Amino acid sequence: MSPSRTLGTSEDYFNMRQSNLFGKTLREAPKDETTINAKLLIRAGFINKLTAGVYTYLPLGWRVIRKIENIIREEMEKVGGQELVMPVLHPKESWQITDRWDTVDVLFKLEGWESKELALGPTHEEVVTPLVKKHIQTYKDLPLYLFQIQTKFRKEKRAKSGLIRNREFLMKDLYSFHKSEADLDEYYEKMKEVYWRIFKKVGIGNETYLTFASGGTFSKFSHEFQTPAEAGEDVIYICQECRQAINQEIRPEVKNCPNCQAKQFKETKAIEVGNIFKLKTKFSESFDLYFVDKHGTKGLVQMGCYGIGLGRLMGTIVEVFHDDKGIIWPKAVAPFSAHLLQLGNESKIKAAAEKLYGRLKKQGVEVLFDDRQDKTPGEKFADADLIGIPLRVVVSEKSLAQKSFEFKNRNEKKIELVPVDKSLTRIKS
Amino acid sequence: MSPSRTLGTSEDYFNMRQSNLFGKTLREAPKDETTINAKLLIRAGFINKLTAGVYTYLPLGWRVIRKIENIIREEMEKVGGQELVMPVLHPKESWQITDRWDTVDVLFKLEGWESKELALGPTHEEVVTPLVKKHIQTYKDLPLYLFQIQTKFRKEKRAKSGLIRNREFLMKDLYSFHKSEADLDEYYEKMKEVYWRIFKKVGIGNETYLTFASGGTFSKFSHEFQTPAEAGEDVIYICQECRQAINQEIRPEVKNCPNCQAKQFKETKAIEVGNIFKLKTKFSESFDLYFVDKHGTKGLVQMGCYGIGLGRLMGTIVEVFHDDKGIIWPKAVAPFSAHLLQLGNESKIKAAAEKLYGRLKKQGVEVLFDDRQDKTPGEKFADADLIGIPLRVVVSEKSLAQKSFEFKNRNEKKIELVPVDKSLTRIKS
Repeated sequence: MSPSRTLGTSEDYFNMRQSNLFGKTLREAPKDETTINAKLLIRAGFINKLTAGVYTYLPLGWRVIRKIENIIREEMEKVGGQELVMPVLHPKESWQITDRWDTVDVLFKLEGWESKELALGPTHEEVVTPLVKKHIQTYKDLPLYLFQIQTKFRKEKRAKSGLIRNREFLMKDLYSFHKSEADLDEYYEKMKEVYWRIFKKVGIGNETYLTFASGGTFSKFSHEFQTPAEAGEDVIYICQECRQAINQEIRPEVKNCPNCQAKQFKETKAIEVGNIFKLKTKFSESFDLYFVDKHGTKGLVQMGCYGIGLGRLMGTIVEVFHDDKGIIWPKAVAPFSAHLLQLGNESKIKAAAEKLYGRLKKQGVEVLFDDRQDKTPGEKFADADLIGIPLRVVVSEKSLAQKSFEFKNRNEKKIELVPVDKSLTRIKS
Repeated sequence: MSPSRTLGTSEDYFNMRQSNLFGKTLREAPKDETTINAKLLIRAGFINKLTAGVYTYLPLGWRVIRKIENIIREEMEKVGGQELVMPVLHPKESWQITDRWDTVDVLFKLEGWESKELALGPTHEEVVTPLVKKHIQTYKDLPLYLFQIQTKFRKEKRAKSGLIRNREFLMKDLYSFHKSEADLDEYYEKMKEVYWRIFKKVGIGNETYLTFASGGTFSKFSHEFQTPAEAGEDVIYICQECRQAINQEIRPEVKNCPNCQAKQFKETKAIEVGNIFKLKTKFSESFDLYFVDKHGTKGLVQMGCYGIGLGRLMGTIVEVFHDDKGIIWPKAVAPFSAHLLQLGNESKIKAAAEKLYGRLKKQGVEVLFDDRQDKTPGEKFADADLIGIPLRVVVSEKSLAQKSFEFKNRNEKKIELVPVDKSLTRIKS
């Protein structure tokens, strides 16, 4: 056992010695990956491909997902969302009731027990609607907002674009239930604001466009949140006046911006990072989901659904924030806040780095400590740039000669010497 | 919209008005459920059955699962576990390498894209071993401990026993990788302690027995943690001397207690709440998982695996802790710490209850507030007993007449009047 490879303490969730970290960086991206997000996330040790469109989240990647998850959960709870988790295995009968068993071509189907047929859930209207039916009787039970963060499945013909279109993926889906269309409309508008808050918090707020898309049978438009990126599979037209956009799919019918009526658009490839949709009574009709109003009259429940793919969001962030050396994580979703690099194995350098690491641990700062003894400074710098933690702190003979550590933000070129005794405060700020 | 049904704030994760809570209590358990855990968890609104062996975790149930999850995660990290998440979809080829594609009869199989065959993972040796192979070269990369908390699938012929044996279930599985059998043995012993800590923390430590079970091809014994319960599907023999047990499956060969050699046993049905297993080189041989030692010699990596089913653990806790009125949650896994009951809708009572609720929210105490206006005191008491939150605090005309609230622990009969001004401190303690 190498000396540093001791069993951890619970502090080690927040901190990690790179000599222990599972997930080595690679010099080259796998040849079968063509998108920036897949190349960088695999090279930097965030994800690993099991088969096309199916990825393992390695420890670094899982930390990012959990940060995204927490941001989303907090925002869902702020607008009254109650968290539950519905199953992956869906009975065929539920999908027959909505006539979607034969029409949704991305359904993975399988044989269960006693020749029962099942699908792997790609979405959960078929489960949540009958579930809610068991619990709703009158207007007093409405509105109701249920969400889950759960694994979904789509039998895509082609899975490409790294984390952008997967066959197995983590998704937040919220379903809202209302006694009137006016109430649905109000919540839908509130959800737009919630989605903006989420995209701002994870760092892509300025890069994302509210996009008008097809509303399906019951609504004129639905809204997507689209982020321009080379790996995008959608094409959107960004209004040059109001910064809203329209999806190519409705471009033939929609000539003017639905928001400001302007006619000038810029075409771009984009990734759909979120989608909000008024289902209205489509599913409550299928499942006879009624409520009784104040006057004793029966009415159909109005529904909305609101989705965000967590892995796709992670992939999009990488598409937006990177340079030719690697990823540049926004602070809120970075796997660690600081990357501490020990350059050289001399006892003085080691002692200074270990001391700083110990103090950061105690203070609850999330730090990845590159304590690897068999790596050159060049390799450590390259890995730090590739992994993309926002702040790099270097402990070296050169820095210690000036009683300092060397600070560099991943998104800046400037290198700064910070006196040893001021480093802790600086890192925490 | 009923007056109390306003949109929440993020504080509402920690707190909940029962008038808003999704998941109503039922007077009767569904007829098709025979076990205590299923009957009580369904009646109390913790879970809902979608189809046999496949359950939705409703908000109350999901809170319990998340508490169990956090206890397990913390303990895994304390012994160096790094969290990742591996996929549900496994390629057939991986399971052919270990000759388990045709022999594991609980494998759900399905057709993927381009006639690719897949299985839904019931365990992850077939994924984690080749994954680790990509990252391990020398003894310096060992030991390594990887764990995930993830959904697994088993095509059980019969699913029964509520949450004890499901077709879709949440599981923590940790895989350990070692350079020697001695190192595996040491970690395995450490994991026994970790498992005891987990079972103690969730409340079933005293009710659980370390049980010798079949070790498979490569080990004499594996160890299970078994908790006696009527819903148990295993039969164990508890040694009357040392409180360890042996599983019925090895009873024919094992006459004396393997721990203390005693011969007196007590037979009981039990639930396997955890299992630790030395895989040794079974899977490293299949996948050629080698490492190079200090002397440059190649050796097979030694492996161990360690599982706990989270839903099963929740079901077991209910089997152990209940009475004829409902569940009695241990504090560490209770969905809320306190259940605040407002009895009567008079403004004075309402004001006192709301004030206490507001103060508890601010203090970060997790409280379920039964503010329902259309329920009788009898109904509220019955629901409180059924749901089983450890502390019940009643605000009523009677209690307020004595400037007090009425306190009762779910697991005691004693009712105590606590002065209003001392209630907050008392609840927090």
